Amino acid sequence: MGSKKIVIVGGVAGGASAAARARRLSEESEIILFERGPHVSFANCGLPYYIGREIAEEQDLYVQTPQGLKNRFNLDVRVRTEVVAIDREAKEVEARNLDTGATYKTSYDALILSPGASPLKPPIPGIDRPGHFVIRNVPDTLALDAWLASKTVKKAVIVGGGYIGLEMAEQLHRRGIHVSIAEVLPQVMNSIDMDMAVWLHEELALNGVDLYLGDGVASFAEPNDGEHALASVVILKSRKRLPADVVILGLGVRPEADLAKKAGLEIGKLGGIRVNEKLQTSDPHIWAVGDVIEVRHAVTGEWCHIPLAGPANRQGRMAADIILGKDVKYEGTWGTGILRLFNITAGGTGANEKMLEKAGIPYQTVFLHPLNHAGYYPGATRLTLKVLFSPETGKLLGAQVVGENGVDKRIDVLATALKAGMTMDELAQVELSYAPPFGSAKDPVNLAGMIAENVMAGDISLVQWHEVEDYDPDKILLLDVRQPEERAKGYIPGSINIPLPELRRHLNELPKDKEIVAYCLVGQRSYYACRILLQNGFKARNLTGAFLTYAKATGDNKEE
Amino acid sequence: MGSKKIVIVGGVAGGASAAARARRLSEESEIILFERGPHVSFANCGLPYYIGREIAEEQDLYVQTPQGLKNRFNLDVRVRTEVVAIDREAKEVEARNLDTGATYKTSYDALILSPGASPLKPPIPGIDRPGHFVIRNVPDTLALDAWLASKTVKKAVIVGGGYIGLEMAEQLHRRGIHVSIAEVLPQVMNSIDMDMAVWLHEELALNGVDLYLGDGVASFAEPNDGEHALASVVILKSRKRLPADVVILGLGVRPEADLAKKAGLEIGKLGGIRVNEKLQTSDPHIWAVGDVIEVRHAVTGEWCHIPLAGPANRQGRMAADIILGKDVKYEGTWGTGILRLFNITAGGTGANEKMLEKAGIPYQTVFLHPLNHAGYYPGATRLTLKVLFSPETGKLLGAQVVGENGVDKRIDVLATALKAGMTMDELAQVELSYAPPFGSAKDPVNLAGMIAENVMAGDISLVQWHEVEDYDPDKILLLDVRQPEERAKGYIPGSINIPLPELRRHLNELPKDKEIVAYCLVGQRSYYACRILLQNGFKARNLTGAFLTYAKATGDNKEE
Repeated sequence: MGSKKIVIVGGVAGGASAAARARRLSEESEIILFERGPHVSFANCGLPYYIGREIAEEQDLYVQTPQGLKNRFNLDVRVRTEVVAIDREAKEVEARNLDTGATYKTSYDALILSPGASPLKPPIPGIDRPGHFVIRNVPDTLALDAWLASKTVKKAVIVGGGYIGLEMAEQLHRRGIHVSIAEVLPQVMNSIDMDMAVWLHEELALNGVDLYLGDGVASFAEPNDGEHALASVVILKSRKRLPADVVILGLGVRPEADLAKKAGLEIGKLGGIRVNEKLQTSDPHIWAVGDVIEVRHAVTGEWCHIPLAGPANRQGRMAADIILGKDVKYEGTWGTGILRLFNITAGGTGANEKMLEKAGIPYQTVFLHPLNHAGYYPGATRLTLKVLFSPETGKLLGAQVVGENGVDKRIDVLATALKAGMTMDELAQVELSYAPPFGSAKDPVNLAGMIAENVMAGDISLVQWHEVEDYDPDKILLLDVRQPEERAKGYIPGSINIPLPELRRHLNELPKDKEIVAYCLVGQRSYYACRILLQNGFKARNLTGAFLTYAKATGDNKEE
Repeated sequence: MGSKKIVIVGGVAGGASAAARARRLSEESEIILFERGPHVSFANCGLPYYIGREIAEEQDLYVQTPQGLKNRFNLDVRVRTEVVAIDREAKEVEARNLDTGATYKTSYDALILSPGASPLKPPIPGIDRPGHFVIRNVPDTLALDAWLASKTVKKAVIVGGGYIGLEMAEQLHRRGIHVSIAEVLPQVMNSIDMDMAVWLHEELALNGVDLYLGDGVASFAEPNDGEHALASVVILKSRKRLPADVVILGLGVRPEADLAKKAGLEIGKLGGIRVNEKLQTSDPHIWAVGDVIEVRHAVTGEWCHIPLAGPANRQGRMAADIILGKDVKYEGTWGTGILRLFNITAGGTGANEKMLEKAGIPYQTVFLHPLNHAGYYPGATRLTLKVLFSPETGKLLGAQVVGENGVDKRIDVLATALKAGMTMDELAQVELSYAPPFGSAKDPVNLAGMIAENVMAGDISLVQWHEVEDYDPDKILLLDVRQPEERAKGYIPGSINIPLPELRRHLNELPKDKEIVAYCLVGQRSYYACRILLQNGFKARNLTGAFLTYAKATGDNKEE
């Protein structure tokens, strides 16, 4: 593999992975790991759980120590040292010891940039007031923890409903603090679509978290007389005033690309360092990995910024491989993400509907609500899957899953299928494990494949929930095929009811000049109904996800 | 799709799926479903859980009723009716009403055979004594339940350590009954390899189940004076006598191919009906699906008999597709199976080592013992993965996983990868979901891929546990790189100890003429050690799975 002098900027996920891999491949290389903070390789994704004390000990947050890395991998780890400049001509970096202020230069054969991304702090008036916290690293987390320990914090306001905001909502709630979330978008967890995020909105409400959607922060202010707020009063654009004893800023992150920019490396439109398939920047001696880079989305091919630990670790390992002569390439990022929020879990992989719209990629959406395991075995709970595929090729494009149990499994199966470029009819045939506590003879993923297969074969056409929100009753007849006792709990306005077992006997009552859109609770019985109708000469389509998707997405007629 | 007269023999998994799918595709077809038993589509895989009352109500075992199937799918369901003959020339079957004894004939355009498989009852003396039960259907289950309710059953003997035997062991234990299992093979759950089944053996012991391995039943006898047994004394070939108040026969199953055989259809060496990729028997008007057929194993290409609910359901659906004109084919069965046994779960997919040996397919085995989720998040437990891949192509061939949590997820990801024909380096790059409660930035499946990638690249060579069981100390030096306090709990005899952090300082103490086989607890640190050694001119290989695999597989030096 040869021997090189490898300098790495940033000692967390991507940087630490690169350093350890480089050493395994090259015992002779000199490997210097610069880290601005006091810690390397800490439990980045665990920080919120320390606040709620699910992770009980601060010590548990330190995955590796600088000394441990040195002992195991013979790395030259320099913490509290910031790389302040890159001299690309001389192939040197300039480093500053943050404790002494001393600066020095060191050369490199290969430079890996893994500085990460920093929490966004837009210029909102009052954003820097005391009692406001971001959660990027251990010191941030300990500062928040100290604030919570030293004050009587009753009310928290979280600005931003992304991963960090939602995880912090859960963990602050565990500490008995009332939580409000303000999110400028109409949904939380923007990596999934709104019609899936509604399950999270409901879960937040069930747990007493107040959610302000489509409402950004206008300013953070001193409390008025009569207002009690140890930190700020968060004033929303709607003029609502949310008094906060603590404020968490979860407004997203910005690639820490300043060093790269100053060095003249190509920066993308999203502010990240642009890299090629070899994770090389525009300078062939400089690689970049992790939250600082822009990558090609593996489904849409668009440049994207996806700050996730999994890709960062794989990129770090791969950069070391490439530098040390291995012929590998980075195929892009699928953006597979998952979130536990109180009693439910939501995850996504590949492209969501918003991304496909933006990229102009044709897609077909399927919703389904199967049980997580055999219904006859106790404790089965309902999953909701939204699966997107190409109506031209049948290829899976992306998927989202929400539910109480078994979400991670289905996301991971679907992520594997995406990586493999599988088509939906192949998904129908995947032989997944089945015993009553774990699944069903036809797993939810198989069912998604089968539905798509039926669509591709022309055996069924689907209608989306938003297409029946305001449909034209002159052209469409909405047919509810559930039993009357189910319908009594809520239905789509204007629909008529013929239960599936009676449908064949009532065909002569139905019109042949209108399109019949059938629905039941989850879409299975209405699919059966459509097959009967279609073969009897009716125009019929199935409402995908049926009443359950419709009711959740529109907020009408709640029904479990 | 046209209209056909479709006759189906067998109304459970495969038959019921075929019938329902046929109706969805063809409203006009006449579909007759014959079922010998009183029930259609019952919860086959749930039967053991009714005995332990995890499934509390008998009613829950009936997934569909004949009337329900008739209402929903307009099927002509004839229960308690046995098809006794097939006239292939006339394309007719002869059916007998089991209640009246009346027989009649009915014609078919397409015949689907789905009679299932029946429990094996070898001619062991006394096998038909009272108090002996098989668990194939609801009446069997209710008969056992009645025996348990009417007697003071303290001791159960289960003959056979397959899925049914192990599930019954767990469920009888739940009822407070002492359980013994007698298995003629040296391991339980023969679908996985012995070095993985050892975890099940240990779990049985932990739960007070007595396990007699490599010991078949010689006879079932009347108790002697002084022996108490409400059913039989089970006399093993080793002459051990096991008094039993109830005996469960879980000796495997035999395809119910008699009807097919009598009709002259081709039967395979394993006793199942041979079908082609179109699930057609040797008569092109007769299809067969489910536990009665022999299929090609999707990895080895060998004929096999894999009685599992998932494949049966998919086959049933596919047979209907093919009969009604769809161009699909059955690719074979992967044998994906899973078992919960008390607090652990074991699963497998694709080929195991025994099958690859038999088929003469070259393979490389990797063992690993990663945590099921981030170690810093509470509740992480260790998984054991055994992954088999082709050293020529890098393709995944099969995998087995055992552990407390997250087994089903990894099996399903690996099953998806198998279906997709993925290579191990592709597995390393799959982007799986990561949040601390669910996984790690490098998921166990990614780690398996990375290890295999290193092997394929020649960066590491592996030694198997059975290769160090009796190694030649003149040729091999066993090097334990754990910390002394770990070693104190057990080690491989003859090994020396140099902890990894000290290895670089002690290289001059090691021989260059011997091969050094390194191990730690799980194989990660010893991999690092091997990389140091190899790059310093030593011959070194890593003991895959390290001490944990070695200790479990050999039964020596237990250590968690």
